[in-house]
Amino acid sequence: MAKALASWRESTNLKSIKEFVQRVTDPAHADFVPPAQRVATFDNDGTLWCEKPVYTQVYAALAGFAQRAKADPTLRDRQPFKAAYDGDNKYFAKYSIEANLPKLERMLAEAMAGETQAEFEARSAGWFETARHPRFGRLFKEMTYAPMIQLIGYLRAHEFQVFMCTGSSMDLMRIISDEIYGLSRDTIIGSSLMLEWQPRSDGPVLVRAPAFVKPINDGPGKPVNIQRHVGRPPILVAGNSNGDIEMMQFAAASGLPYLNLLVHHDDGEREYAYDVGAEKALALCAEHGWSVISMANDWHTIFR
Amino acid sequence: MAKALASWRESTNLKSIKEFVQRVTDPAHADFVPPAQRVATFDNDGTLWCEKPVYTQVYAALAGFAQRAKADPTLRDRQPFKAAYDGDNKYFAKYSIEANLPKLERMLAEAMAGETQAEFEARSAGWFETARHPRFGRLFKEMTYAPMIQLIGYLRAHEFQVFMCTGSSMDLMRIISDEIYGLSRDTIIGSSLMLEWQPRSDGPVLVRAPAFVKPINDGPGKPVNIQRHVGRPPILVAGNSNGDIEMMQFAAASGLPYLNLLVHHDDGEREYAYDVGAEKALALCAEHGWSVISMANDWHTIFR
Repeated sequence: MAKALASWRESTNLKSIKEFVQRVTDPAHADFVPPAQRVATFDNDGTLWCEKPVYTQVYAALAGFAQRAKADPTLRDRQPFKAAYDGDNKYFAKYSIEANLPKLERMLAEAMAGETQAEFEARSAGWFETARHPRFGRLFKEMTYAPMIQLIGYLRAHEFQVFMCTGSSMDLMRIISDEIYGLSRDTIIGSSLMLEWQPRSDGPVLVRAPAFVKPINDGPGKPVNIQRHVGRPPILVAGNSNGDIEMMQFAAASGLPYLNLLVHHDDGEREYAYDVGAEKALALCAEHGWSVISMANDWHTIFR
Repeated sequence: MAKALASWRESTNLKSIKEFVQRVTDPAHADFVPPAQRVATFDNDGTLWCEKPVYTQVYAALAGFAQRAKADPTLRDRQPFKAAYDGDNKYFAKYSIEANLPKLERMLAEAMAGETQAEFEARSAGWFETARHPRFGRLFKEMTYAPMIQLIGYLRAHEFQVFMCTGSSMDLMRIISDEIYGLSRDTIIGSSLMLEWQPRSDGPVLVRAPAFVKPINDGPGKPVNIQRHVGRPPILVAGNSNGDIEMMQFAAASGLPYLNLLVHHDDGEREYAYDVGAEKALALCAEHGWSVISMANDWHTIFR
């Protein structure tokens, strides 16, 4: 089992993780938690893989608009398809995620609607085969953190049920989650478009509708959607930003022994260094003694 | 494995089930389906347990209203709490499910809102310990069909992932699903109330809100919610009513080998005999050659 977490350096944080898992899996320990309640939830962007310079789902969405405009000329006069087709970055710059999330959501929902679920999946699966990160040159799906994937395996070896809980598109992540994390589709919780069941002459299909399932899976939406999907609180949570705070509070309020892990992006050389968007989460970790994982110090290797 | 389905009589339907499972699990067979795609979805009311004379969730809801009115006198002037507390059956008669489902939904959503998720679960768990079926005198949670529970086990032994897909309350079923079916909470798909994440002085809680998550998990809502929860179509579906038609069509449109099973309530002596609410489903089974399971002829024993 020592090798299971080989990309972690021996550190206080690694020790905390191992000790926690030992306590909750030891039937003789006061902190024992039965397997049915050993739920772990992992944020994705910035926690399981790289989220900079922009969330991967944004690249995927823009590529999708361009591809659909290429296939269907009637879309080329309509935004955001026109901008994506013409490579007009100024158009998209105004949808800066931090500044205007609701506007981005509305734009995405309307522009992504209309495809069948099967069309969306085929198109997105193709994109993942060639799309590369602008700085590292690796496929986006290879931008995953080895220590965290090892942690998922370690938890499962100790009868934890591991779920992804991402603010990004659930449907996009489900296409590659098994391949890159070993997480089956039904263990992915995320934001998603509403679907409509449409009878057609050649049989019924699921069509993507122009609205998000509520709540969006971020911040206070995370505990709501974890309860909806899993039916109970997590006892181990891994996140990296303010959007993961409520999920951590959910574990803390579970009445069970719990462990919260915040991945801190402090390695500008091997990845990125930033605290923006994690200020409140870092403060809460300090306040409650939750673990702050230093990518620079705690991880021997970063990418898988 | 012969004993695994001991409550089934040797019949054409049992043979179909076994042959289907053999085909999709045999790597050498043209119909082989990899385990990741071996999804089975089971309706609950009338498919896994008895749904007559009224859905079990209706008894649970009425008992809940009465109990809450008993604990909180201020509720006794407010409907439906007043009627439940006074035992006023006339008030509830006008909410006959078949006649007025939307009205019943609205009433239930508004009346069930306000409790925390933890309060709801504790109260409902207590109800299941004593509440009995009016005709059979057994606990409601004992009104389960032995042949179907055996079928769940048989499918899992063949690496199927089994989900419940019920029109009734997801949260209610999750309280007992592991105990009575061996189905963990995260494998239960159903109708549910929206939840709100509320910070309180003694820590945040999930509070049940006065609206249902859309779509309600019935009819065309079933394929939508299966896709949302599981991420792919089922290849084996078991249902018993018109509300299960779309879920069966979802399997038929999967592009994979599939098996649809309709439990037919034709045993008035050992259970109930009725076709009301299953007319269209029965017609579709005849049209497409989907299996109609006769409770009278195919099942050696009915209740577990």
